[in-house]
Amino acid sequence: MITLAYDGTNFAGFQSQPNQRTVQDVLEKAVNKMSTAKEFVHIFGSGRTDAGVHAFGQIVHFDLENDIPAQGIVNGLNSMLPLDMQVVDAKIVSKEFHARFTAHGKRYMYRVSRGRFVDPFKRFYTGHYKYPLNIELIKEAIPDVIGTHDYSSFVASGSQTKSHVRTIYDATVRENLENNEIIFEFYGNGFLYNQVRIMVAALLEIGNGKRPVHDFLRLYEVKDRNECRATAPASGLYLKKVYYDIENNK
Amino acid sequence: MITLAYDGTNFAGFQSQPNQRTVQDVLEKAVNKMSTAKEFVHIFGSGRTDAGVHAFGQIVHFDLENDIPAQGIVNGLNSMLPLDMQVVDAKIVSKEFHARFTAHGKRYMYRVSRGRFVDPFKRFYTGHYKYPLNIELIKEAIPDVIGTHDYSSFVASGSQTKSHVRTIYDATVRENLENNEIIFEFYGNGFLYNQVRIMVAALLEIGNGKRPVHDFLRLYEVKDRNECRATAPASGLYLKKVYYDIENNK
Repeated sequence: MITLAYDGTNFAGFQSQPNQRTVQDVLEKAVNKMSTAKEFVHIFGSGRTDAGVHAFGQIVHFDLENDIPAQGIVNGLNSMLPLDMQVVDAKIVSKEFHARFTAHGKRYMYRVSRGRFVDPFKRFYTGHYKYPLNIELIKEAIPDVIGTHDYSSFVASGSQTKSHVRTIYDATVRENLENNEIIFEFYGNGFLYNQVRIMVAALLEIGNGKRPVHDFLRLYEVKDRNECRATAPASGLYLKKVYYDIENNK
Repeated sequence: MITLAYDGTNFAGFQSQPNQRTVQDVLEKAVNKMSTAKEFVHIFGSGRTDAGVHAFGQIVHFDLENDIPAQGIVNGLNSMLPLDMQVVDAKIVSKEFHARFTAHGKRYMYRVSRGRFVDPFKRFYTGHYKYPLNIELIKEAIPDVIGTHDYSSFVASGSQTKSHVRTIYDATVRENLENNEIIFEFYGNGFLYNQVRIMVAALLEIGNGKRPVHDFLRLYEVKDRNECRATAPASGLYLKKVYYDIENNK
């Protein structure tokens, strides 16, 4: 398994697509240069990220026949990868490990930049919100985000998941005054398609006074995306960490 | 006068060039959309920045016939400018003001990122130095940077300036351990072509033990660029502030 960081700006998302530059295609190319096997080596990510979404801690696994120590995999791949992707760490894991199926949690971060105009240095790395915000209202709403809920109001069309019930273990919001940013974090057992970006958009509407503070409680009941149409931009979203039961090598 | 921030990554530098995307060309286009004058309005910067060099506080002036309040200039230009350039501030100044000729000082910042590999999020925003560094050696060398000196050893070929004597009023170095960066600042009455980037490269060589701590004193005497060949990358350099005697509107 490797821990992968990437700047999502110039990737058409994680998943392989013809004639597009994707995280999977770029990484598989490097892995196969390193592999001594005759067969093409496929890589498996903990989940997809959309075009423009970033990662500090995406987890990927693949099977190498080569007998390379973990640090050799880090160094070898980084010598071949482009500068917008970096292998942060590598671990040799058991055959039972699967980046997607043995993951039991994920942590996402979302950076919102404030101010009337977009800071040129943040245009690819934050979502920008120029309207007034009362962060105290968002802080009041945050506990409603935590728990086990049906998130049908917060899932983009195109989701192929049958159940929209997920558990969010923790959610936080903090203000970085020096930087003029608001930073959200969400830690849960799994997230639906665009769920974090739709929740952030709804929380900003609460901060702006467009929605009542405890509107999430109503949105869990109505189960209707039409009640929650906005989606915060991909540029603010970071996959920060994927959780496994690593002590048991799973 | 306007204060301009730009992400230099996708600009071929400040100065207008045929068939290139430059800061001057992009800004002049927006200014002329706003202008009611028949003649083309030229803009004047405090100085050029090279391709890839960033600015938080570049200063530019131009003459508008229109009677627009300063905040209207900020809003109007920002509505037309691309996202990698932003007008931070505007002031109506006297006719004696000239962005270049009445400037009496500039402050540059240089961000060095550390670690074996380039962080994907810093590739365009820092210079990367992967070799060992003893920051204490750099701190010892920093006082030698300050003062009035002949910087001929630190000027890139192509400089058209006759005198290489400049004064640096202040120079600092600090370590951001959380970020794994070293940040330099230089405040002086003016800087030669590539001077900051060549000084940073020499200071890093001092930190690495390749040069004696007080080598700057020798370099001021020999006045020879061959003694100081390295240039730190443009991506780490930021024009932070330009100083004027604004109380007298100059």
